[in-house]
Amino acid sequence: MLNFDIHLPTRIHFGRGKLEELGKEILPWGKKVLLVYGGGSIKRNGLYDQLLQIFQNNGIAHVELAGVDPNPRISSVRKGVELCRKHAVELVLAAGGGSTIDCAKIIAAGAGYEDDAWDFFTRKARISHALPVGTVLTLAATGSEMNPYAVISNEETGQKLGTGSPVLFPRFSILDPEFSFSVPAEQTAAGTVDIMSHVFEQYFSPTTGSYIQDRLAEAMLKTCIHYGPVALSQADNYEARANLMWTGSLALNGLLGSGKHTDWATHDIEHAISARYDVTHGLGLAILTPYWMQYVLNEQTVPRLAEYARNVWAIEESDDTKAAWSGIARTADFFKSLNLAASLKEIGIEENSLAVIAEQATGGRTLGAFKKLNTQDVLKILQAAYNGDTL
Amino acid sequence: MLNFDIHLPTRIHFGRGKLEELGKEILPWGKKVLLVYGGGSIKRNGLYDQLLQIFQNNGIAHVELAGVDPNPRISSVRKGVELCRKHAVELVLAAGGGSTIDCAKIIAAGAGYEDDAWDFFTRKARISHALPVGTVLTLAATGSEMNPYAVISNEETGQKLGTGSPVLFPRFSILDPEFSFSVPAEQTAAGTVDIMSHVFEQYFSPTTGSYIQDRLAEAMLKTCIHYGPVALSQADNYEARANLMWTGSLALNGLLGSGKHTDWATHDIEHAISARYDVTHGLGLAILTPYWMQYVLNEQTVPRLAEYARNVWAIEESDDTKAAWSGIARTADFFKSLNLAASLKEIGIEENSLAVIAEQATGGRTLGAFKKLNTQDVLKILQAAYNGDTL
Repeated sequence: MLNFDIHLPTRIHFGRGKLEELGKEILPWGKKVLLVYGGGSIKRNGLYDQLLQIFQNNGIAHVELAGVDPNPRISSVRKGVELCRKHAVELVLAAGGGSTIDCAKIIAAGAGYEDDAWDFFTRKARISHALPVGTVLTLAATGSEMNPYAVISNEETGQKLGTGSPVLFPRFSILDPEFSFSVPAEQTAAGTVDIMSHVFEQYFSPTTGSYIQDRLAEAMLKTCIHYGPVALSQADNYEARANLMWTGSLALNGLLGSGKHTDWATHDIEHAISARYDVTHGLGLAILTPYWMQYVLNEQTVPRLAEYARNVWAIEESDDTKAAWSGIARTADFFKSLNLAASLKEIGIEENSLAVIAEQATGGRTLGAFKKLNTQDVLKILQAAYNGDTL
Repeated sequence: MLNFDIHLPTRIHFGRGKLEELGKEILPWGKKVLLVYGGGSIKRNGLYDQLLQIFQNNGIAHVELAGVDPNPRISSVRKGVELCRKHAVELVLAAGGGSTIDCAKIIAAGAGYEDDAWDFFTRKARISHALPVGTVLTLAATGSEMNPYAVISNEETGQKLGTGSPVLFPRFSILDPEFSFSVPAEQTAAGTVDIMSHVFEQYFSPTTGSYIQDRLAEAMLKTCIHYGPVALSQADNYEARANLMWTGSLALNGLLGSGKHTDWATHDIEHAISARYDVTHGLGLAILTPYWMQYVLNEQTVPRLAEYARNVWAIEESDDTKAAWSGIARTADFFKSLNLAASLKEIGIEENSLAVIAEQATGGRTLGAFKKLNTQDVLKILQAAYNGDTL
C-alpha cells in the first residue's frame, strides 16, 4: 500500500425527500444562486418546480444556466461564468448528472478567475479558489457529487480534458434515488458501466498489498452487477436506484484509489473518442473495457484479472489464465445484457479516425499504470473494439 | 435502505513518515497544545521524542496529560479539562489508541463547558462546541480517529457510557502503520476483534436492501481475517498493519451504518463487563460475539447469518441453518486462533456478578436491533459465555 491523504468534506443527504435539506444548506453561503441544469429532465420529473418553491420559501434569488449537454462544453462554462459575474452569484447549484455538476464546478472556479476557464485544463492556470458548489443528483454515474474533479470538452479544439482541485468538492450533495427513476434505460445502463469503469481503473493496479481497497472495489462491482439489470427492467425500483446511486458516489471519492497507483487508460481513450464523436461516456467505456482487459492480459497482470474473475464473477477455475479469460468474457456479456453496443463500428465511429483518436488519447505519452500503453497499443485496442472482435 | 446523512470532515494522512504533516495541521488552530497519551508506549517507540521535536520546530508550546488508561476514566478527562483552562490550550492532540483519543475528545468538549464533563454521558448536557482535536494513531481498533464518538468510564458510578457530536470529529488524524509495530500481541488481537465487532454491529441489521453497505462490511471482515494473524505473528509486517489500521478507521466512520438500523447489543454488554472488571474491550467482545450470534439465531435472522458464513468464510452449504452454525463456529475458532480467551470464567469474571452486569447493560430497556434483547436474554448470553459452552 502506498502513502495517501484523504479528505471527504462533502455533506451527503441521501434518501427520499432529502430535498428538504436544500434551503438550510444554501443559506450559510448566501441568497444568490446560479442554477445549472441540462436538457430539461428536471422539468419533466418535477424537480425544477420543487427547487423554485424552495428558493421562494427561503428568500433565495436565482439565475439559470439551462441546456448543459452530456460531455459538457467550455462554451456552457463561459456562459455560466458570465452569469455569476453579472449577478454576483454566491453559490452554484447543479441539478442533474455528472455533466451538469462538472460544468457547475468549472463555472464556480471560473467566476473568480480573470482569464478564460479553459486555462484550468491546459494547465495554464491552477484552480485555487471557487464559489461554493452544491448538487442535487439525478443520475448514478460519475461520482462528481462527492469528488473534486471535472471533465469538460472544448468544441473548438476537439479536446475533452479533466482537472481537479480540493476547492471543487461540492459543499453538499442531495441524493434522492427517486429523482433517478426517470432516467432512460440507455442512460441507466451507461451510468452503471461508468461506475464499474471507475472501479476498474482503480482496481487494476500495479500496487500490491492494498487488500482492503481491492475488497471494497469488488463489493462495488458486485453491487453494479446485481442492481444494473434491476434498474433497467424496473425503472422505479428504489432499492436498485439507491444502491447504484450511493455506489456511484463511493466509487470515485478517493476510497478505492487511496494507497494505489491507478490506471485510467480506458477513460483517456474514451475521452478521445467522445471529444470527437459525442458518444455517451458509459457506452464508450462499455465497448472499450473488455478489449482493454484482453490487451493488457499478460504474465504480470494475469493474477489480478484471475482474482477479479473469481471474486466478482464467482468463476471456479484454478488456472489463472483460463479464469481471467472467463472474467473478461463475463464482463463483455454483462455489458451486452444491458443492451449496450459492443463495437465502435455499431455506434458510428469511422475506421479511418482510429489513428487520430489513438494519438489524441496518448498525446505522445504513455497511458495507464496496470500496463503502460503507447499510441500503437491504444490503436490496437481501438481496432479490436472497432471490429467487435470475439473475446 | 434507510435515509441517511453522512459527513466525514477528518483529514487523513496515511503512511510511513506522515508525521511530517503534523506541524502544518496544528498551526492553523494555534500554538498551545495539550498532548494526551497513555502508559508510555509512545516514549518507548520514539513517537514522543518526534512530537517534541515537531513542537519545537514549529514554535508550538505544549502541556501534557499522560497515563490515560485503557477504558479511559472521567477523572483523566477532568485533569485534562483543568490543564486546558489553566494554559489556554488551543488544540488537543491525542497520541495513542482509541482510549487516548476518546479521552482527548471529551477533554476538548469539557474545556468550554462550565460544569462537569460527565454531564455529556448522563445526557444532562449536549456537546455543542469543543476545542479542535487532532490524533496520531498507534493502534488499529476503535476507529475513533475518524469518527465523532467517545466512550468514557466513571470509576465512581461503575458506568461506561458513550456520547457523540459532530464537533468531536478529529480535524486531522495521522495514521502511520509503523507506529503500531510495537503493539503487543494481545492488544493486536483485541484490536482486530474490535474492528470486526464494529462491522458485525452494523452488518447484522433488520434493514433490507442495504446491499452495498453489506458487501463493504464483508470486505472489511475479510481484511481482518486475512491480516489479523499476520500482524500477530509478524509484528512489523507493514502490509498487515496498514490494512488493519485503515480498515479500523473505515469500519466505524459511518460508511457501514449509513442507511441501516444498527445493533450494538454486544458492545453494550461488553461495556457493562469492562466498566466492572476493566477487561480489554476487544477481548470481552471476542468472548461474547459467538454467544451473541448463537443466541440471536432464529427464523428471521438465519438468512443473514448464513450469508455471513458463505460470503465471509466461503462456507459451501446450501442449508441456511447449517451454514449459519458453521459461520458461528468459524468465528469462535478464529478468535481462539488469535490466542484470546473463550470464556468469561477464564478472565476472572465472577458468576455471581452476571445478573448485575445484565441489568447494568440493559438499564431496564432492550438492547439491539437485529434481535431485541431484554435483561433475561442478556443474562443467558452471559451465562453461556461464562461457561464457554460448546458452540
